[in-house]
Amino acid sequence: MDYRVVEELAFQNDKKIVLLVMDGVGGLQMPGREGTELHVARIPNLNLLARQGSCGLMDPIMPGVTPGSGPAHFALFGYDPVENNIGRGVLEAAGIGMELTPEDVAVRINFATIDENGNIVDRRAGRIPTEECERLCKKLQEKVDLGSEVQFIIKPVKEHRAMILLRGKGLSGDLLDTDPQETGVPALPATPAVDTEEARRTAKIVDELVRQVREILADEPRANFILLRGFAKNRHYRSLEERFKLRAYAIANYPMYRGVAKLVGMTLNPITPDIKTEFEALRQVWNDYDFFFLHVKYTDSRGEDGDFDAKVKVIEEVDSYIPMITELNPDVFVVTGDHSTPAALKSHSWHPVPVILAAPTARMDDVERFDEVSCARGTLGRFPTMELMSLMLAHALRLKKFGA
Amino acid sequence: MDYRVVEELAFQNDKKIVLLVMDGVGGLQMPGREGTELHVARIPNLNLLARQGSCGLMDPIMPGVTPGSGPAHFALFGYDPVENNIGRGVLEAAGIGMELTPEDVAVRINFATIDENGNIVDRRAGRIPTEECERLCKKLQEKVDLGSEVQFIIKPVKEHRAMILLRGKGLSGDLLDTDPQETGVPALPATPAVDTEEARRTAKIVDELVRQVREILADEPRANFILLRGFAKNRHYRSLEERFKLRAYAIANYPMYRGVAKLVGMTLNPITPDIKTEFEALRQVWNDYDFFFLHVKYTDSRGEDGDFDAKVKVIEEVDSYIPMITELNPDVFVVTGDHSTPAALKSHSWHPVPVILAAPTARMDDVERFDEVSCARGTLGRFPTMELMSLMLAHALRLKKFGA
Repeated sequence: MDYRVVEELAFQNDKKIVLLVMDGVGGLQMPGREGTELHVARIPNLNLLARQGSCGLMDPIMPGVTPGSGPAHFALFGYDPVENNIGRGVLEAAGIGMELTPEDVAVRINFATIDENGNIVDRRAGRIPTEECERLCKKLQEKVDLGSEVQFIIKPVKEHRAMILLRGKGLSGDLLDTDPQETGVPALPATPAVDTEEARRTAKIVDELVRQVREILADEPRANFILLRGFAKNRHYRSLEERFKLRAYAIANYPMYRGVAKLVGMTLNPITPDIKTEFEALRQVWNDYDFFFLHVKYTDSRGEDGDFDAKVKVIEEVDSYIPMITELNPDVFVVTGDHSTPAALKSHSWHPVPVILAAPTARMDDVERFDEVSCARGTLGRFPTMELMSLMLAHALRLKKFGA
Repeated sequence: MDYRVVEELAFQNDKKIVLLVMDGVGGLQMPGREGTELHVARIPNLNLLARQGSCGLMDPIMPGVTPGSGPAHFALFGYDPVENNIGRGVLEAAGIGMELTPEDVAVRINFATIDENGNIVDRRAGRIPTEECERLCKKLQEKVDLGSEVQFIIKPVKEHRAMILLRGKGLSGDLLDTDPQETGVPALPATPAVDTEEARRTAKIVDELVRQVREILADEPRANFILLRGFAKNRHYRSLEERFKLRAYAIANYPMYRGVAKLVGMTLNPITPDIKTEFEALRQVWNDYDFFFLHVKYTDSRGEDGDFDAKVKVIEEVDSYIPMITELNPDVFVVTGDHSTPAALKSHSWHPVPVILAAPTARMDDVERFDEVSCARGTLGRFPTMELMSLMLAHALRLKKFGA
């Protein structure tokens, strides 16, 4: 789908769109259960919404392709998930609130413990407390010096985890992890994943960084080293406001999803303690934005655990909060997932994701339940997730007519 | 669909995929019959499979476009049927086991009879027996001489039919048939279908070839001439193994289908006498390949005849052999057609083709029968045939996750 047409047609109005994403909501039948997680769940509010709206099935990337959360969310926001695919380092750096420039290479680090020979003893430095992580980051931020051309920025995340940005012209994100994923061996040197001048140069800078870190942390009892994972170069993303005239707000609690939302220009809600408080947050900002992305993580988490019943329970909990959204009378209310995470597979999968689009302008079909089989018969049919944004804009009456 | 993504994700494992193609299986209602050929057929095994698997409808090329067998099969194997379209000459040459290089131009010939004025008396030379065809081909192979730059290769097929390859640099397949499709007139000179230097040069070579053939065969009582049809230049196809890490095996009895299978790198089964022996052949090679293409021709043939009942009978015969496949426990078992050949139309048609995808990871929908109308309500929805390969690989768990 070529979104240039849609971008030219988009205009601002006072309609409001809510996109509720239950991460990994799509499921699969499991022996001993009557169908998928959605089939089994008691979800009167979602079923009512399905009856009132148009239903369908979406392919996150393309048929058969299992997506990571990053590209799956880019697709939900109307960004080509293949063209806009980006490494985890950037998504998480943006997600923890680091301000990135298009020149930045982002990478996740673990503080680790090495012995006198440089062999890794503990890949997580005994899971040091977050305060210790903060102290170490401050120490490194003060002492690391990569010369005048490359700026070093570090930010603590949680326990042994932190995030690093390398900022400078001509850096590459095409480097392999230095984390060997085992103990008793030394860390790997920084290694280009592609054979370019930029990657070779960046690898040298990373090796120098690691050398300095080892020196600076030499007197630390536990966290005397770092392991780097998920190198990624940032790039420029045109915002939802620039592309679709949407002032967009994200309610999401995990760095990955906050990251994608941030990269496409959404304002981020402060992190909330649970699902209910995410729903409550919506009312408070209702008047200030056009587009609201509300992300529920635990459907995916329970699917990854292989816990069918627990996933059903999360779906039922979400169902109980649906009235908190419908009471706000959104002009367009979409409920879907970014991808499927069937408990039966304990992982993301390629199966298409059911979707409800409720709006006064939505054609009512005869779908009576929000589940994968019922939605397959809906009037939206089966379509790539990337096309959803265009549909949401249309039902919000935010697209002009094309042509004479 | 951009298959580059899928190719990067594909990896080898021990899962097995069976693709059963009933040529032209899609049908149409006919006066006096209760629905389509599939509706009327008693097919308990296929219906069971439909109940257990996911169902859908596939468009071979794009909605409304009636395909030839060549592009329809390229699509089934995950090759863009428009980009990879190639002339019949190449498909049949590959299908009869000629080893082609990317420099070859292939063309089908008929031995024919002309009178002393060069007018065609019999376009098939009285359907000479195959042995005579073999003798004539040998004679031509010995005597034709197109100079040092163009090699001439001929192989008998059946009765009056044979296949020629012209091998050399810079040849073109863009030539019109020399067969005028009528008698009492001379053959047409070789004529470029496009205005290129290569086509003009190749036309001259073909004219010289025809001149020599007329001389060499001057003393033959019947087959004293050749008519050329279906010029096509070969090209390089990346194999299924290269693209999708599939070791693929084809069980098909007709040159066209053997040809497409050969071009995409499948190993060809020896020709078998009937449908049952095709199914039996599967067991013998089960351990040596990952992907099995089993082609049944007669559904299409009876459709082309306009013989509704005979097509129903072929479908029922195939149904009776389905247990021979399910007993092998394939990880993915797909049943479909390359296109529709409704007896009501006596020809290929553009109607989408029903498909069953059975696998432990297939979402069970509530489709209870393998027919065009039931499958339209399945969870696979309606999709281009070309996307089937990606789905088969996914259900065989042979694709990695895309993105972080």
